[in-house]
Order: sequence, then C-alpha cells, then structure tokens
Amino acid sequence: MIIALKQGISRAEAEALVASLEKQGVAVDFSEGAAQIVLGLVGDTTAINDEALRANHLVENVIRVQEPYKRANRKFHPADTILEMPGADGKKVSIGGASFAVIAGPCSVESREQITSVARSVKKAGAAFLRGGAFKPRTSPYSFQGMGCQGLDLMLEARKETGLPIVTELMEISQLELFEEVDVIQVGARNMQNFALLKELGRSRKPILLKRGLASTLTELLMAAEYIMAGGNEKIVLCERGIRGFDNFARNTLDLALIPALKRKSHLPVIVDPSHATGLAWMVPAMSKAAIAAGADGLIVEVHNDPEHALCDGEQSITPEVFASLMESLHKYAALEGKSI
Amino acid sequence: MIIALKQGISRAEAEALVASLEKQGVAVDFSEGAAQIVLGLVGDTTAINDEALRANHLVENVIRVQEPYKRANRKFHPADTILEMPGADGKKVSIGGASFAVIAGPCSVESREQITSVARSVKKAGAAFLRGGAFKPRTSPYSFQGMGCQGLDLMLEARKETGLPIVTELMEISQLELFEEVDVIQVGARNMQNFALLKELGRSRKPILLKRGLASTLTELLMAAEYIMAGGNEKIVLCERGIRGFDNFARNTLDLALIPALKRKSHLPVIVDPSHATGLAWMVPAMSKAAIAAGADGLIVEVHNDPEHALCDGEQSITPEVFASLMESLHKYAALEGKSI
Amino acid sequence: MIIALKQGISRAEAEALVASLEKQGVAVDFSEGAAQIVLGLVGDTTAINDEALRANHLVENVIRVQEPYKRANRKFHPADTILEMPGADGKKVSIGGASFAVIAGPCSVESREQITSVARSVKKAGAAFLRGGAFKPRTSPYSFQGMGCQGLDLMLEARKETGLPIVTELMEISQLELFEEVDVIQVGARNMQNFALLKELGRSRKPILLKRGLASTLTELLMAAEYIMAGGNEKIVLCERGIRGFDNFARNTLDLALIPALKRKSHLPVIVDPSHATGLAWMVPAMSKAAIAAGADGLIVEVHNDPEHALCDGEQSITPEVFASLMESLHKYAALEGKSI
Amino acid sequence: MIIALKQGISRAEAEALVASLEKQGVAVDFSEGAAQIVLGLVGDTTAINDEALRANHLVENVIRVQEPYKRANRKFHPADTILEMPGADGKKVSIGGASFAVIAGPCSVESREQITSVARSVKKAGAAFLRGGAFKPRTSPYSFQGMGCQGLDLMLEARKETGLPIVTELMEISQLELFEEVDVIQVGARNMQNFALLKELGRSRKPILLKRGLASTLTELLMAAEYIMAGGNEKIVLCERGIRGFDNFARNTLDLALIPALKRKSHLPVIVDPSHATGLAWMVPAMSKAAIAAGADGLIVEVHNDPEHALCDGEQSITPEVFASLMESLHKYAALEGKSI
Repeated sequence: MIIALKQGISRAEAEALVASLEKQGVAVDFSEGAAQIVLGLVGDTTAINDEALRANHLVENVIRVQEPYKRANRKFHPADTILEMPGADGKKVSIGGASFAVIAGPCSVESREQITSVARSVKKAGAAFLRGGAFKPRTSPYSFQGMGCQGLDLMLEARKETGLPIVTELMEISQLELFEEVDVIQVGARNMQNFALLKELGRSRKPILLKRGLASTLTELLMAAEYIMAGGNEKIVLCERGIRGFDNFARNTLDLALIPALKRKSHLPVIVDPSHATGLAWMVPAMSKAAIAAGADGLIVEVHNDPEHALCDGEQSITPEVFASLMESLHKYAALEGKSI
Repeated sequence: MIIALKQGISRAEAEALVASLEKQGVAVDFSEGAAQIVLGLVGDTTAINDEALRANHLVENVIRVQEPYKRANRKFHPADTILEMPGADGKKVSIGGASFAVIAGPCSVESREQITSVARSVKKAGAAFLRGGAFKPRTSPYSFQGMGCQGLDLMLEARKETGLPIVTELMEISQLELFEEVDVIQVGARNMQNFALLKELGRSRKPILLKRGLASTLTELLMAAEYIMAGGNEKIVLCERGIRGFDNFARNTLDLALIPALKRKSHLPVIVDPSHATGLAWMVPAMSKAAIAAGADGLIVEVHNDPEHALCDGEQSITPEVFASLMESLHKYAALEGKSI
Repeated sequence: MIIALKQGISRAEAEALVASLEKQGVAVDFSEGAAQIVLGLVGDTTAINDEALRANHLVENVIRVQEPYKRANRKFHPADTILEMPGADGKKVSIGGASFAVIAGPCSVESREQITSVARSVKKAGAAFLRGGAFKPRTSPYSFQGMGCQGLDLMLEARKETGLPIVTELMEISQLELFEEVDVIQVGARNMQNFALLKELGRSRKPILLKRGLASTLTELLMAAEYIMAGGNEKIVLCERGIRGFDNFARNTLDLALIPALKRKSHLPVIVDPSHATGLAWMVPAMSKAAIAAGADGLIVEVHNDPEHALCDGEQSITPEVFASLMESLHKYAALEGKSI
Repeated sequence: MIIALKQGISRAEAEALVASLEKQGVAVDFSEGAAQIVLGLVGDTTAINDEALRANHLVENVIRVQEPYKRANRKFHPADTILEMPGADGKKVSIGGASFAVIAGPCSVESREQITSVARSVKKAGAAFLRGGAFKPRTSPYSFQGMGCQGLDLMLEARKETGLPIVTELMEISQLELFEEVDVIQVGARNMQNFALLKELGRSRKPILLKRGLASTLTELLMAAEYIMAGGNEKIVLCERGIRGFDNFARNTLDLALIPALKRKSHLPVIVDPSHATGLAWMVPAMSKAAIAAGADGLIVEVHNDPEHALCDGEQSITPEVFASLMESLHKYAALEGKSI
C-alpha cells in the first residue's frame, strides 16, 4: 500500500501517522521528496482500513499495490485448483486443470419426464454434469418460482438414473440442509455479495459454483470467493455470466477478457454461462467456442427439450440436438487448448 | 402486451397461438396487416410468460406495454404512500407526502459513546431518524463486520435517550427476530434481489427501506418492492444510492433522474443516500440539495463525530458541524418544494 | 507520478530507469523499501509517457498523482473563469461566477416564424442566450439534417430582433468561417474527442460550449478542454448532458455529481443540458432545479412552440409556457445559491 | 413500426393521426382493442419521425419493429459482403467470406527502420495487411501526435517493400487528399459519429474500416455505416474494439457477442481489435483466438519491435515473436471455422 501525503505536510505530522500505522503491524518505508512525503507499507496490509486513511486530513491518495485477497490469490497458491468428484459410469470428473467441464440442463426442473429426458440427452452428448433449478430467483413474484424440494428430488432421481453429478442453486441459508446430496452448490449472480450466505458456505465442504454479479468487478468476485475460503472451504469454481451493459442486442455483455485476467490473478477454475449472458439460444454456440478459446475451464449451458414451452428462460435454451452438435465442435476446440472434455 | 408475429405467418397458425393465450385469461385483439399479424393482449398480463412467447417460432417481438408491477404501481394506487410512526419528543414523523425525512447517523455503531453522541448531534440539527449499522455488508471478510447484536442494543439505547426512531440494516432472515424493536428495516443494495429475504419481509409489518442495487433498473427496483408488497407489507421506502459507472471521480453515479421517474410510476416514497453514492464527504451537501430539488422525499446521510477514525466509510462521513449547516440549507430548499423537515 | 517497481528489482536496474527519467526533465525521489523500490517523480510530468513506463519490464504499477491537465486545472488558476459578452437590451451577460446563465431555444431551427417566436418567448421568460441547431448531428442519414447556412442566417435574424446572443453547434472545421457572427460555438457530445476540431477551435477566439461525450470521464472532458486551451483559447464552458447507462427510463443518465467534481478540479464554468440528458420534457423542470442546487453555472434547455410537430427531439422539448414557469422557480433556487439569473 | 395510443383515445382522434401518417407514404393497420387502439405502420418507415410521434399527446408508445438501416441490412442484401484488393506477392487479399484477414503493425509509425522492420516481421508471420498510425488521436494535447504526412510516406515505403496493403487512420476531412494511395482508411472509435466525416467518406471509393465507438450500440454502429453507404460507398469493414465498462482490469470491455449479432443483422464483414480492447499485450493472444471462435472475419493487432520504447500504447503491443506464435495458433482455429488466413 502506498500513501501519498498532501503537499506541505511536515515530517513531524507524517511521523505521527507512521507510528499509528506501525501499531497496526506493518512496516513503513518513509520517502521524503521535494514535493511531498510518500509512505510505502510493507507486510500484510489486508487489515489496514484504507477508508479511514483516505479520510485522514494528511493524506492525498491511498493506492493498494497488493491485492486484498489472499486465499484466492495465485501469488500465494501458484498451482491451479482442480476439483474432482465421482461422475457417470464410475469415472471421475473434474473442473480445472486439463479438463474442460460441461454442465448442461434446463433452467428449471419442470417434471420427472423433462429432467430425466434432458439428463439422458446431455449425458449422451458428453456433458459431465447436470444442471437444473429447483429454487429459482425470478425478477417477478408472479413468475414461476421453481418446484422447490420436489424439484430437488427429481434432480436426485435424474442423477441416480444417469450418474451425472448435479449442480443446482441455493437461495438462502435455511435451504442448506436440503442440499446434502447435491454435488455442486450454485450461488447466483444476485447473491454474489450475500455475505451471510457466503460465510455459511465457508463452513460447508461442498464445491461452490460462484457466479459473478451483474456489476461486480474482478476484485469483488475474488473477495466473494475469499469470504467462502476464509471459512475453510476452498472448493470454488468462478463463473462469468455476463455483466450489465448499455445495449440490448443481447441480455447482458459477456466479458470474456475476465477469463485470462482471473487465471492470472487466481488459481481457481473459471467457467462461462453463455445462456444467461446472451439470453439468446442462437448465440450460445458461438459464445461457447469463444469461451474455450479464451481459456475457460468449462461451460454451464441451458438445454431444454421443448424451449417454446419452458416455464422459464425458453428463449435462451438450446435443444438437445443443437447441444449435441455444439459438443462435437467443442471437442475440437478443447484439443487445440490441450484440454479434454 | 403486444405480440408482433413474423412475416408470412398464416392466420390459422396465429389463431392457434391466440387460443393458447386466451386460455391464460387474457383477451386478444387480432390485427392482420399487409405485412404481419399483430396481437394486442388485454387484461392482466402480469402472469403471461413472455420468455416462452419470445422462444415461440411464430413470434418476432414481444412488447410489454403494461408495467409488470401492480401493488407498487401508481396506476392502481394514485395517492402517495405516507409512512408514519412515533418520533422524538412525542411527535409523529413521516416519510412521504409533504414531509422531507432526514435520516442521519454513522455508517456503523462503534461504541455507546459514539452512537449516543452522534444521535444527540443529529437530533439537535433536526434529523428525524437515526441510522447506524450493526450488521455490516463488507466487501472484504477481513474488514470490520459490525458489532452485531451488541450494536443493535446500543442503537436502541440511543433511541431511548433521544427518542429518534432507528433505521438499521438486516442482512439475513435469521436476524429478523433481533429486529423486533427496530423502527425501519433497511435492505442493502447487494440484497435488493435476495428474493428469499424479500418474501420474508413481506410477512413482516415493519417499514422497509429498500435500496436500489448497483446495476438495477427502475423496473427491477419496483419488482423488488412488489415482492415485499405481494406478501402483504406495503410499508416501503425506495432509496437511490448510486449506480455503477465507468468513471472514478466518485464511488458511484448518483442517478437523480430516477426520482421523478419513480414518483410517476409508483406511489412509494423515494429517498436518496448521497454518502454511499459519492463516497466523498465534500460532495454530500451539494448532492443533498440536488436530491431535494429533484423531488426526493428524504435523505439518509452518514454523520460521524470523528471520520478520520471511523471503523468504516470515514471518507464519506460528514461531521456533526457540517451536518448542522447542511440542515439549515435544506430547510430553505424544502420550503421551495412545499415540504417541511 | 509514482512508479512502483516489481519485487526483486535490483538497485542498479532501478538506477538506470531513474537516469532515463531524469533525462526527461523530472526529479526522482528514490525509496527503497524492504519489499520493493518506489520512485516518486517531481516536476512537470505531463509529458512523461506513462504507457511506455507501464510496458517497461521493471515496472509493476504507475500512478499519476498530478492531473494531466494544466490550463484547465484549478491548482494553477484558482479563480473561477467568467465569460462575459454583450446581451439583450444593451446589458452584459456572463457565464460563470455569480450569474446563472440560461440558454434556451429549439433543438433545430425550422423556419423564421418558429425561431423568432421561440426567441421572443424565452427572452420574455428571462433566458440570456438563444440556442438553435442549423447543422444537426443525427444518428440516421435519413433524418432531417438541419437547415444549414439558412438556419444560421435565421438565428442571426432572431438575435437581431431580440438581442439575445446565440449558441449553435459546429460540426466540422470547414464550417468555421460561417460561424463568424455566432456568439458561442457548441461542440457536441459526439465530437468531444474530435481532436482535429478541438485544435482548430484553439486558434479561434470565440467562446466554446464543450459537451461531455456519452462515455467520457471527468479527466477526458478536461483534456478535451485542454486541447482547445493549449491552442490559446481559454473561453470554455463545460456541459454535462447525460452519460450512457444501462436503464431506459430516460434517454441517458444525468450525472450531476460531475458538477461539484469539476468545480473542484477546474476553474471553468459548468452548465447542464437536462433536455438531452433525459429526452423527456416532463423531467426537465426537476432536473433543472437539481442542476442549480448541485452548483451548476447555467442550463441549456430545449424549448419549442409546438413540440408535437418539431422536426427533431420533440419529446424532450418543453413549451414556452412550461419554460416561463420553470424560470420562476429557478430564480428562487438561484437566490439560495447566491446567484442571479 | 407499432404505435400504441393512450387509453381513452377516441376513434376520431386516432383517425386524424392515421391520415397524417398516410400522407407520409406508409399504410396503417388500425386495430381497435377493448383497452386501446394500436396502429401498425406498413411500408418504408425509415423516414417517419418517431421523436415527433412520441411527443404526440395521443401516443403512449412507439415501437420500431423494422431496423432503421437499409443498405447495411442483411434482409435486403442476404449475401456476405467481401472486400478484395491486391496483396503481397501478386496475390489477392480479401476481408469477409471464407478468409480470415490479419492486419498487424505498430500503433504509430515512428521511423523508417521501425515500420519497415515490423512490416517485414508481420508479413513473414502471415499478416495480410500492415497497420500503422500517422495521424494519432491522443487524449492529451501534450502526447506524441503522430508523424503526420511523413508517417504516411513511410507507410507507403513499407508497402512498396513488402507488398502489404496498408490500413491507417484518417482524422479529418481535409486529410482525405493525402490518403489517395492508402488501401484501407480507418475511422477511429472517437469519430464513429463524426457525421460530416462519414458523409465525405460516402463519396470516396476506398474501403473503410469503421471502429465502434466506446459507448455505441449495435444499431448506432450500423447507422454510422449507413451514413457512408447512403453516399454510395459500400466497402465497409466493421470493427469491435472494446466498450467502456465499470471495471479496470483491462482498458475496455471486449464485447465479442457483438460479432454473431452483427453477422445476423448485417452482411458487412466484422473484425476485432484485441489490442485496444484490452490495453494489455498478455491478453491479446487469448482474445484473438476467442474472436475467431466467435465468428470474426479478421483481426487488427498491434505489433511493435520494442514495446518498452514505443511512443504510444507500448503496454498493449505484442512483439514480432509473440505475433508469429499467435499466427500459428490462429491457423488452427481458422481451420475449425472453415476459414483460411
């Protein structure tokens, strides 16, 4: 952390500030230039209150050089994090490293027939995980809110039948006990900074799929991961799902440059949700291929057997046929990136 | 709702769609032009699934003419909502209508001395409510997270001493029982679309201060209010607190045009938080005056007796002296708007 | 300018960089901490190429402490700039300082009757300047492009009749000779970074009304002003006219916090265009009052005698009646701010 | 175009509006529902003034169903536009269709040695075009503004030596005569809505590389192209180069979903500039591969022989070595997309 003092601040005034900083456990480099005094803080500055510093009448500017996250930081954990779990047909599946993980399924579970049929289709096409919503975050209280516990049971049945591990969204802490059998717990974009929920998930030992908020920065996303990791749960997958933009040709703006940026700053795996990002089924194949080329570790894609009658997000769901054909392309792109699906 | 069908769709195909829409309880105006068929839906379209319609192969475009919110909609509730509750010195205080409500206090409760001293100062200067955070949503898990229950107790003590009703933030459902004595429950920007929380607050009878999310549209804000109102709690105050922008001269972009827009669309009172919006104490007075001139029903302002040592958000807190001087100006602006503080 | 070197860089490597910086005319404070070396540049750093520094393999981070603008910077020019020119009825009008300047008129000049009638109305209501477009920047090549030279002549006739100095937009350098009689030359938002145009205007001695681009930062706006000022023309009025946002309840997002920020950083006067910012006539009065409360030095407002038949931007134009009533309010707000209209 | 009238408007009032619309050359479908009257306009509505319609007191809402662009619209020109011109070594090069065009070179021309050396390197690695700036749009008037005419001459020399057609930016109309020998004229992001310049380029017969503005929508980009095409010049290449976003991990937000959206709406070729979009050399390879996977027709990439001493944008320039290695990857990605470099 670098603290530039205002012009005209005396050495004595500055030294009082230095003393108060040293009490907080950091060493301070003192640089007295012709124009102004600059302090360089050395040590663990994550607990330094930079807001109070900015309010200090001696201070002109505070610049954090060090990232505010530790456990999610590649500097302190150079190797890629790889999550591994049992998959279909007695094989292991993993997210991160040399594997490209495809998670597919409907926006929401609607019936036993629907979820089982989609599960079979996506498994056949090569998906490693089944997604499906039981508890749905909907903008309107008058929209279908998901099947709830019954939806969760149907997901588990589909897993039993296909062997695909399941990924589904948790909306509040009290639901946690219902998720005991779930393989990967999803935290939605709107809950990315629901800190009470994140803390609770830090106490869990389940893998967490953490979606980027609609207007969250790279640092905020990693700080949300840090909340979970600070509690002891390091099994986290980050997910870019589009940010709010000014145009409306697609629902959101898919920010693929986030992928190389995250891979450089953090060791956590990063996947992409092209369905929610664009809101348009016909864009999903192009954006899926772009995601893999940009370095993503996987995809979460909406597939529905009858998009025109989907109870939610039909416009963005691709059919099993389109998904199968997309998977064929993805195999070739994964090969170029040295990854296997 | 207007549904424009694709060019070349036959009357028979269109009629099948009309029949399926009529089954959902709406009447359908059928307009067959030279180029395309246009359907106009009449009746309550809030439950019509427009996502599925957009995915329909007959449909080119779906346009909602009617707002998706009902209880928050001024069309169905023309008179301004006014919240009233007991205030200091045996008087009533209200939010909405002809009163301009000023809520002031520190970002977070730090000690008995601090909260009581600030409470006394802001009361003296004319604030009607005391704000203060006991449970704090912080970007970093390593930052001060608030004093919790103890902070809540200190808020109640400060109310006892000054008579000012208190406003404080709820972060998760399980805290609700601790908030029984709280006068106004705040839902923070990051929880604006925490739908589980909103539903629970719909069952409460407490006034709710609902802050706009950092990238939430006017419609999304009103739909969040609608979630609470659909549960039976209509005591809601909306709050503009800055949206995410591309510049960094202030923390966020204060969107004051939202105020007249909300007042036109909804009957709910609207207040402004200039402290979080700008993040800079020296901007707070100018933005407070602009808020009142733009038609706001009140302000929520951070005031701290010692901003340089505040445990959170010191840079944006004004001192009691600045607050007192601001209140003097606000009285004059309120008078021009026909409001009393 | 502060340059943080990467960890592990040796003193010798750093000294070579220091030597190359000193050759560029700045002094360098050298601070060798336990963790990294930090260089503080003292002197005029406006010409230092920070892009090249960022590409340097020794450098971790470059932070500009000093603003990159000089002539527009309040630090080097503490007093407010005030532009003065002859107004109606033999009086002087000014922009900046203790006066609040109201510029009003139609989006585009449509006929002699229209512009003269509007000019008379706005003069009667108290406007100090007449606005009107002769050359119009339109998104579509098929929209009305303005009356061109003939429109300019009609503006001059309206000035002759009312005495109001005129403000009109220049779209390209070759039009400059046609603008000899114009009082204030407007540079539109889309041309804010048309650097060739800005340089040419630096050679002019006319007052320039410089509108902020739709996605321009405060610094970019001041750098655009700096382009003109570097050429020797310091008569500049800055104008906030809304930035691109993610919502569509209004055309753009009016960023009123820019006003106090600009007033702190620069000595140039700042006005607001509530008509283009919101695109909605019914929002113009509220946003005009908010602008004055936020510290603006004036307004540029669209007034049309028949908005329903305006050839451009009818939806955002207020009628002369609404304008007259708005002016009455503005007088009271100006008084509170210690300004006269 | 669909016009929804306000509730309660009578048939007679509506018919007067219909008559005025029919006079403007469109047919009007009249649909009288139980709740409101809806008008559907049939025919060429590009010249209908929807702003005036919105200001009409009878009108609630105006919805454009038809795109406002014609010549750039794929509906009226289904086949891909392919630009072809003489390239190096007596071969033709093309942009659009089955070819993937790589344009490479330094941000700005700095010397004969520099431009010739880079030209040779990028040719050897397989680039089809040479880029280089002679007139540079710089945020600061104190930054290097390009070598001007001399830079243009050096570009032409480099073309003579390598045979690579050259792409360079035009900043104002008066420079047009200097560009007679230039192969492709670039319009920069900041000039995308410099309508005077666009009109002039409509009279030229040179291929135009039109960069998207920092906050321009898909429709605005196509309308900018339409300005040029309306003048008779249909040789246009569109370029996505990053939009302004709220985060700062990269300079801008690269919006790759624009590519499939543009390809669906328009027949014009689309290329991507990963260098300006990210501002970071290390991100260029990942974003280049993602661009091709997303369906782009080419790239424009900054390559500099000595990025640390580049006079502009060194941080985003890749070295000839990195470029050569990137080209090897791109060949494989192009093959997957059925394109040849």
